[in-house]
Amino acid sequence: MTATVHSLGTSREPSLSPLLALVANDMNGVNAVILERMQSKVALIPELAGHLIAGGGKRMRPMLTLACASLLGYPGNRHHKLAAAVEFIHTATLLHDDVVDGSGMRRGKRTANLIWGNPASVLVGDFLFSRAFELMVEDGSLKVLRILSHASAVIAEGEVEQLTAQRQIETGEEQYLTIISAKTAALFAAACRVAPVVAEHSEDAELALESYGKNLGIAFQLTDDVIDYASDAATMGKGVGDDFRDGKMTLPVILAYARGSESDRAFWRSAIGGERIGDADLAHAIGLLRETDALSETVERARHYGRRAIDALAMFPASKAKAALIETVEFAIARAY
Amino acid sequence: MTATVHSLGTSREPSLSPLLALVANDMNGVNAVILERMQSKVALIPELAGHLIAGGGKRMRPMLTLACASLLGYPGNRHHKLAAAVEFIHTATLLHDDVVDGSGMRRGKRTANLIWGNPASVLVGDFLFSRAFELMVEDGSLKVLRILSHASAVIAEGEVEQLTAQRQIETGEEQYLTIISAKTAALFAAACRVAPVVAEHSEDAELALESYGKNLGIAFQLTDDVIDYASDAATMGKGVGDDFRDGKMTLPVILAYARGSESDRAFWRSAIGGERIGDADLAHAIGLLRETDALSETVERARHYGRRAIDALAMFPASKAKAALIETVEFAIARAY
Repeated sequence: MTATVHSLGTSREPSLSPLLALVANDMNGVNAVILERMQSKVALIPELAGHLIAGGGKRMRPMLTLACASLLGYPGNRHHKLAAAVEFIHTATLLHDDVVDGSGMRRGKRTANLIWGNPASVLVGDFLFSRAFELMVEDGSLKVLRILSHASAVIAEGEVEQLTAQRQIETGEEQYLTIISAKTAALFAAACRVAPVVAEHSEDAELALESYGKNLGIAFQLTDDVIDYASDAATMGKGVGDDFRDGKMTLPVILAYARGSESDRAFWRSAIGGERIGDADLAHAIGLLRETDALSETVERARHYGRRAIDALAMFPASKAKAALIETVEFAIARAY
Repeated sequence: MTATVHSLGTSREPSLSPLLALVANDMNGVNAVILERMQSKVALIPELAGHLIAGGGKRMRPMLTLACASLLGYPGNRHHKLAAAVEFIHTATLLHDDVVDGSGMRRGKRTANLIWGNPASVLVGDFLFSRAFELMVEDGSLKVLRILSHASAVIAEGEVEQLTAQRQIETGEEQYLTIISAKTAALFAAACRVAPVVAEHSEDAELALESYGKNLGIAFQLTDDVIDYASDAATMGKGVGDDFRDGKMTLPVILAYARGSESDRAFWRSAIGGERIGDADLAHAIGLLRETDALSETVERARHYGRRAIDALAMFPASKAKAALIETVEFAIARAY
């Protein structure tokens, strides 16, 4: 692609291919660490963890660590362990999320909690989380440990705040941004910031890549929110309307509620309150989201954060890595169409 | 007390008083860290965490860190943060345990999962766990981080193994010791080992105190197992027979099953399989445990580990701290009577 800095909207469809090609070699190293370090003499641990880890996730976060290291010309492989640690933290979070939400499907497969039960998912999540810290300790950078332990605490805070906002129709856009900045964007940001630390680059590079990751994470989450109301189940690997049935206040709903008529608002109150979970209710909800432009407006918001992510890369000279990081942003947004 | 090294069995009742007196000042520092660092702008976090943290736990593990530091004459206060981190890891484990077991009572109070639900308990546990690592990173010792991240992974492994052993009548004494060495003793061992690291003592001191903690932890767990069949609910702060109703293979059951007649074994098979959970069944179980001396034999096993804990202290000269550590072992055993 042509890596003009503000190129949100290229002629061909943006994809993850440049990112995948950029990190392919390093990713083999990361995958080797992941496979080796999810092992345990307790057989249920690799069985359950492997179900999710081998289960078709994009491994966005470790890829971002690798791509940011590539951007900085880092020649070593210390970041393989750290990228694996990031993926373990993410996997632990997913295992716990599916317990929290009572989810039955993820990435087109039955969830671990459905197959092995909630207790096993909670405990294997704890194991992966601990293993992530062991990997970081082996690397030995206190700075990396600080970044990722702080991100982990922020993620948990965001998840708890989301839990308290569930079924609360009063949740506003500001609170929602606070929640997703914590529960989603913090790990994207940390995954990116780890690279300049390992590559021993400047504090400026750390802040720039943290900003890239944070804004990309928000853009990803907002387009996920749109996809939950707009795509068919195959695209997401989970059912359309999961957020709706769980009474989750995501930005599309926040906007539709704010912009809706009195009767629309009454509908949203009862829907988010859990009184309307049928297919006809979901269809009505999608109709209201379209009438109020709530879905397209959410994509616009995502585009805004995408622009900020790309602008955060301004200090880095043009390169294959930079182009791949830019197209990753475009891909994140384009998923919503 | 008279601190003769093998004094298991003093004339007066052993208690935690010497330990409490030894660490009282330092414990104020630890409690201040705990209270400060369990805060969050998300109100549910301190509310839920505080319920358990303020809920009458003995804080054995941070007290052990402090007592071991006192044994080594450590004059600083670096260990306050680390003792708080140990307590956070323990609290996170308890929150997740209660979700895993579906427990409704702990320490005589309703459990957090009963009051706020499983999702909140899982996520606040994750928060405390992350916060524990942030505290360790602030201290800055990679050696401490290695000890505690490894202990955390071992604990999670032990919990998963216990889950797979639940309702499995074939679980033997060896496997059970492996499980409790991981799920209980590993954190006791780590809490003790942290002290010589902070006090910059020898590797020998590290190994000795790790051994003390590990064996004390096993002794504690075995006497807990006895208490679950022998005490009234007020003593434990939970109902007698919780382990029985959960189909948990603890050492008393393992011994009673191994020593029982064919009809006894048939009873245990159906009980551990979940078919006998009434009060009459529990009474029958307690009768069988007494007939086969399974409870007193479990106490004997605990006494064995208690002796090993005390012997591990041989290299340290007599002191108030040593006497307190020894009496703590005696207290652990005496609880079973």
